[in-house]
Amino acid sequence: MKSYRVVIIGAGNVAYHLVRSVTSSGNKLIQIYNRTLSNISSTSNSNITGTLNSISQDGDIYIICVKDIAIEEVAAKLRLGDKLVVHTSGNRSMNLLNECSENYGVFYPIQSFTRNIPINFKKIPLVIEANSETAQEMLVDFSRSISQQVILMNETDRQKLNVAGVFVNNFTNYIYTLTHDYLKKENIDFNILQPLIQNTVDKLLLGNPSEMQTGPAVRSDQETINSHIELLKQYPQLKDIYQDISNSILEYYKSN
Amino acid sequence: MKSYRVVIIGAGNVAYHLVRSVTSSGNKLIQIYNRTLSNISSTSNSNITGTLNSISQDGDIYIICVKDIAIEEVAAKLRLGDKLVVHTSGNRSMNLLNECSENYGVFYPIQSFTRNIPINFKKIPLVIEANSETAQEMLVDFSRSISQQVILMNETDRQKLNVAGVFVNNFTNYIYTLTHDYLKKENIDFNILQPLIQNTVDKLLLGNPSEMQTGPAVRSDQETINSHIELLKQYPQLKDIYQDISNSILEYYKSN
Repeated sequence: MKSYRVVIIGAGNVAYHLVRSVTSSGNKLIQIYNRTLSNISSTSNSNITGTLNSISQDGDIYIICVKDIAIEEVAAKLRLGDKLVVHTSGNRSMNLLNECSENYGVFYPIQSFTRNIPINFKKIPLVIEANSETAQEMLVDFSRSISQQVILMNETDRQKLNVAGVFVNNFTNYIYTLTHDYLKKENIDFNILQPLIQNTVDKLLLGNPSEMQTGPAVRSDQETINSHIELLKQYPQLKDIYQDISNSILEYYKSN
Repeated sequence: MKSYRVVIIGAGNVAYHLVRSVTSSGNKLIQIYNRTLSNISSTSNSNITGTLNSISQDGDIYIICVKDIAIEEVAAKLRLGDKLVVHTSGNRSMNLLNECSENYGVFYPIQSFTRNIPINFKKIPLVIEANSETAQEMLVDFSRSISQQVILMNETDRQKLNVAGVFVNNFTNYIYTLTHDYLKKENIDFNILQPLIQNTVDKLLLGNPSEMQTGPAVRSDQETINSHIELLKQYPQLKDIYQDISNSILEYYKSN
């Protein structure tokens, strides 16, 4: 495995964690582009630039980790010959980069990044895609230095996996958020639910989640459902989600 | 701590796991009532009966673990003097038991039970309530032999916690179910999501979940939301939940 000279473009949560992972994996982080020159600098000795025109031409790999909607704008300003350029989006096409370089692709970590919470990149599956054999060979090699799990995948499958990630992370986290807020307002300790939450996830390793389903909706217990909705009448967001998901569960187990 | 003589009434998943926990915690399981005389017997040397009229009068504690809607019917047939009688419901009043005995209460384990998956009852929080000092003293003592976390709670708070449990277990498990089905149909390995799922839960120990929220809805990225909905057009249940929860997230972060 080679040591690659890496340029990271972006200063969000993905960039923040990737900076650490690149430097600790035997690669060389030669530059960070950071539009706002925020405190990402404090964590790295690398060269930092605030203008895309000053991006070094000496890198092997350029990783664009900006918001999906900003990829096109950044790509329009990069001309990197045949250097490998990748973005980190689960949803966007690698073709957004086809004018930056002859070699481009996608480097999509399946994770939700939070600024101040350390993460072990080695355990994060990396979904990659490349436009050429040259690009793919280098991207596979580099990715394996970052993570133990590297998966080649086409655009459509990656997009489907990205939607699935929205469900299992964004939506479950939002459910935890509403539940946390609710119990806080009702002066009940959210931590009482920790063993239940952990156990729900542990069971995913043991079988199909449809076989683990419990609760009033799956047993069509309308009396309990009504009493729960009554308890939530002061919490319209919880009430709506309670009704939407309960109706979906009732329907799912009727038709399956 | 005393060794109690316990009678378990019910043959569902809660009863199945409680049988094991009672016998392994130094208490004596003297009888199981099982309406259908199903295979719970194979797991226990206890006396099994299929008629409520034959329930032993020699127990210290009677635990009714039947479906919420069946508690009243079972209670109507039990006359147990001053023996402690409890049900295991998170939602129903202990007063359903006020004609069974002078001493009654609730013994509610915060967990979702699946028949063939072993569980460590010691780690399951038990929420309890009792109608008298005598009942409470015995119920606390017995509960501590079963679990390391015993919480006295009134009916309303227990019901609120029960609703919260529906969100963090039933609803998240249903989301895993739909996602699992989706990826299976699309020939993508659900296990790629395991580190993301585990990390989502790990972060609950590190801060308020509202601060961990990521994804297209929280950043109001309508382009990604639309592309996700397009990908789900063949999956009406996923599409509906995607829209309902995304709209709720958009609203939550607008108003908070």
